[in-house]
Amino acid sequence: MKAVVPPRESPVEIVIAELRQRFGDRLSTGQAVREQHGKGESYHRGPPPDAVFFAETTEEVAEAVKLCAAHKVPVIPFGTGTSLEGHIIALHGGITLDVSRMNKVLRVSVEDLDVTVEAGVTRKQLNDYLRDTGLFFPIDPGADASLGGMAATRASGTNAVRYGTMRENVLSLKVVMADGRIIRTARRARKSSAGYDLTRLFIGSEGTLGVITEVTLRVHGIPEAVRAAVCPFPSIRDAVNTVIQTIQAGVPVARIELLDEVQLDAVNRYSKLNYKIAPTLFLEFHGTERGVEEQVQMVKDFAADHGATDFHWAESLEERNKLWQARHDGYYAALAMRPGSTGWATDVCVPISRLADCLLETKADLEKSTVPAAIVGHVGDGNFHLAFMLDPNKPEEFEEASRINERLVHRALEMDGTSTGEHGVGFGKMDCLIEEHGEGVDVMRTIKRALDPDNIMNPGKMVRV
Amino acid sequence: MKAVVPPRESPVEIVIAELRQRFGDRLSTGQAVREQHGKGESYHRGPPPDAVFFAETTEEVAEAVKLCAAHKVPVIPFGTGTSLEGHIIALHGGITLDVSRMNKVLRVSVEDLDVTVEAGVTRKQLNDYLRDTGLFFPIDPGADASLGGMAATRASGTNAVRYGTMRENVLSLKVVMADGRIIRTARRARKSSAGYDLTRLFIGSEGTLGVITEVTLRVHGIPEAVRAAVCPFPSIRDAVNTVIQTIQAGVPVARIELLDEVQLDAVNRYSKLNYKIAPTLFLEFHGTERGVEEQVQMVKDFAADHGATDFHWAESLEERNKLWQARHDGYYAALAMRPGSTGWATDVCVPISRLADCLLETKADLEKSTVPAAIVGHVGDGNFHLAFMLDPNKPEEFEEASRINERLVHRALEMDGTSTGEHGVGFGKMDCLIEEHGEGVDVMRTIKRALDPDNIMNPGKMVRV
Repeated sequence: MKAVVPPRESPVEIVIAELRQRFGDRLSTGQAVREQHGKGESYHRGPPPDAVFFAETTEEVAEAVKLCAAHKVPVIPFGTGTSLEGHIIALHGGITLDVSRMNKVLRVSVEDLDVTVEAGVTRKQLNDYLRDTGLFFPIDPGADASLGGMAATRASGTNAVRYGTMRENVLSLKVVMADGRIIRTARRARKSSAGYDLTRLFIGSEGTLGVITEVTLRVHGIPEAVRAAVCPFPSIRDAVNTVIQTIQAGVPVARIELLDEVQLDAVNRYSKLNYKIAPTLFLEFHGTERGVEEQVQMVKDFAADHGATDFHWAESLEERNKLWQARHDGYYAALAMRPGSTGWATDVCVPISRLADCLLETKADLEKSTVPAAIVGHVGDGNFHLAFMLDPNKPEEFEEASRINERLVHRALEMDGTSTGEHGVGFGKMDCLIEEHGEGVDVMRTIKRALDPDNIMNPGKMVRV
Repeated sequence: MKAVVPPRESPVEIVIAELRQRFGDRLSTGQAVREQHGKGESYHRGPPPDAVFFAETTEEVAEAVKLCAAHKVPVIPFGTGTSLEGHIIALHGGITLDVSRMNKVLRVSVEDLDVTVEAGVTRKQLNDYLRDTGLFFPIDPGADASLGGMAATRASGTNAVRYGTMRENVLSLKVVMADGRIIRTARRARKSSAGYDLTRLFIGSEGTLGVITEVTLRVHGIPEAVRAAVCPFPSIRDAVNTVIQTIQAGVPVARIELLDEVQLDAVNRYSKLNYKIAPTLFLEFHGTERGVEEQVQMVKDFAADHGATDFHWAESLEERNKLWQARHDGYYAALAMRPGSTGWATDVCVPISRLADCLLETKADLEKSTVPAAIVGHVGDGNFHLAFMLDPNKPEEFEEASRINERLVHRALEMDGTSTGEHGVGFGKMDCLIEEHGEGVDVMRTIKRALDPDNIMNPGKMVRV
């Protein structure tokens, strides 16, 4: 009697079949869905995943990861798909784990100033939810990203100068490990000396060590007084020196953002504003009425020392929101300057004493180049972004942008800065990581191998295994 | 011909012989030196190391670690020996690596508000060094600990409510790994998304993953205005509720410390003060003149709501220093209440909404006990300490303290707090760590095994391998 030999399926086909049987149409292999999950918001391109699984609970994530682990199939966590260094591209195929349906706010404690959310809750959704509590969550990358994704990339944004980044604002995570185990990295205490800092290990790990499914966050009281302004400067150096003085004087400024004249022009056009076209600071002050008044006076004095006196104040809440929405749309505004262009956003962060040099040397590179690019920065942290607007049909532009980016990273590292302040490594900056950390990358690789021995968690990103 | 067989030496004897040959009397096997390096400031007792090596450079540390690694001999990093959970006891013998002679401040940047120090520099030494720069370093555990040790135990202290702990104030570390490689965990940028957060991994790792040899720290501008006060309350709950209101209102209080009536009495006697014997808050405010005025008014209003109006202000710098020195000497003051006693200091940290409950239930335990104990807390963080004053000749007192401590930890964990806010795990709280983290401890163990496969780095602490 001959045994019936079924046609041999590949490991990923087996996983897809099992997930489909178990979860029905929450497992999708449709081309549009796969492609939508296979690219971020930057120029990186690569293969889409073999399938997308829309998980609804931590336990479902664990089940899917276990199945993938059993068959050594890659798992790519996905929130809103707004990352910038190719984090979610399925370099080795596999299953994308979309957590966007895990979008419940699980708990708010007004007394403890903390909340717990599922990983798919976005930053704007959380703030809408908090509106009536007197609390807010300050971390705001340009996109309305998921909080799981923001933890995974150690995101920050415009408020980081005062409120810190995801590193400082996450109290605890729930994580599905590469073998499907579920752990909670910490309790809700504000501080702890109990063991290795697993919370911080997963923040910024970009899905390469596990899947974040829940996030416990610090939130903050909405300040009694908020004032925002826009102020043009004679030069980038004048603007940056004003920032340095502000930080050194310990003014607890909430936001202090630099737009170069290219970016300012783009923002004007995109958001229908008419600010003077010049290197410009966007500022916001939080505090008590008197405290804000005092902060404003100090910064006005510093700005005047550097030839800037033309503060335009956003008087109403509506005007303030418009100002910051314009700032957040900076990347899209830059792209709109060159219709049909592809964006490439890169960022570095340097000690603030070197910020003006780093910016000006970068501007000099751009002036010698034909590729249009805009600069915008969270300058209170020493962090700035370069957004190239590339003609997708001109590979020489990509090469040129690549050279400028390489020089930028090299420059930042020579100034004892970092190759990325908030965008992360993905696969776009893996070589930069080696230049930055040297032997440290071996230590990272050792950790990766220990926690994900079969290299199924977002393989091909961050460190080469 | 017969081979000459030398007498067989044990691995540690080989290491000692080689270190002595290389470094002369900077390798000590004297009994007094070994014993002085074999105990912390708490009740834990265990064997001293086989030898103590006084390293003077990172390269020397690396050389010693390589030698120990080759012979699988334990390495125990040592700063000032002021830890509280048996961190430095040589449970498995080996070489204690004393870094106290690595005491140079390597670099100060007033512009970037950061400094780099060798691991043996103590917090007071750093602040003395900074005196003329207008900068200060805020983290202040009771002892004048080394900054390497403070990083290794994720220390905090009285200013953490405003300035954060070592977790938030370390920018970068130089670390000698278990195989003797030297890595730098990060650059000096204020934020970075470049790779796994190795800095935070080593902060709080208690010497079990590597030896910290250099620390780059954030420092802060000395505030324009500082005011400090002491205020007694009708009850612990009144004091804690005042703290909760202060934190919720976003008052950026710099210090807000609770002493129960036992601790206050001890401090009075030890530091020759005559505060009213009652649950008492020690407070400090930092800011501009007007900002401090405003903070003071808000906190006075909250305190009045809870029956406390008797603020005693430290008017001069001298008086303020005396106040805080008295607070820092709290542990020694408690021990002095019972001459000849041995101290056992434990700490927990809970979400602030549960702090009053946690404190009061603990007080109730103490009232049923015959072992004297004092409570003092960094209550703005939800963190408090219990210091038992034990008769070393009464083992039943140790047992009783052990029971109370176990209940305390269990209580804190039930409130979603942590088993230690700032003292760390050492070997005193290894079981607590398991109760707190569950599967998370397996993840920690996996990391430990990967980075220290022969278990030579401070073995027997933190996680069992």
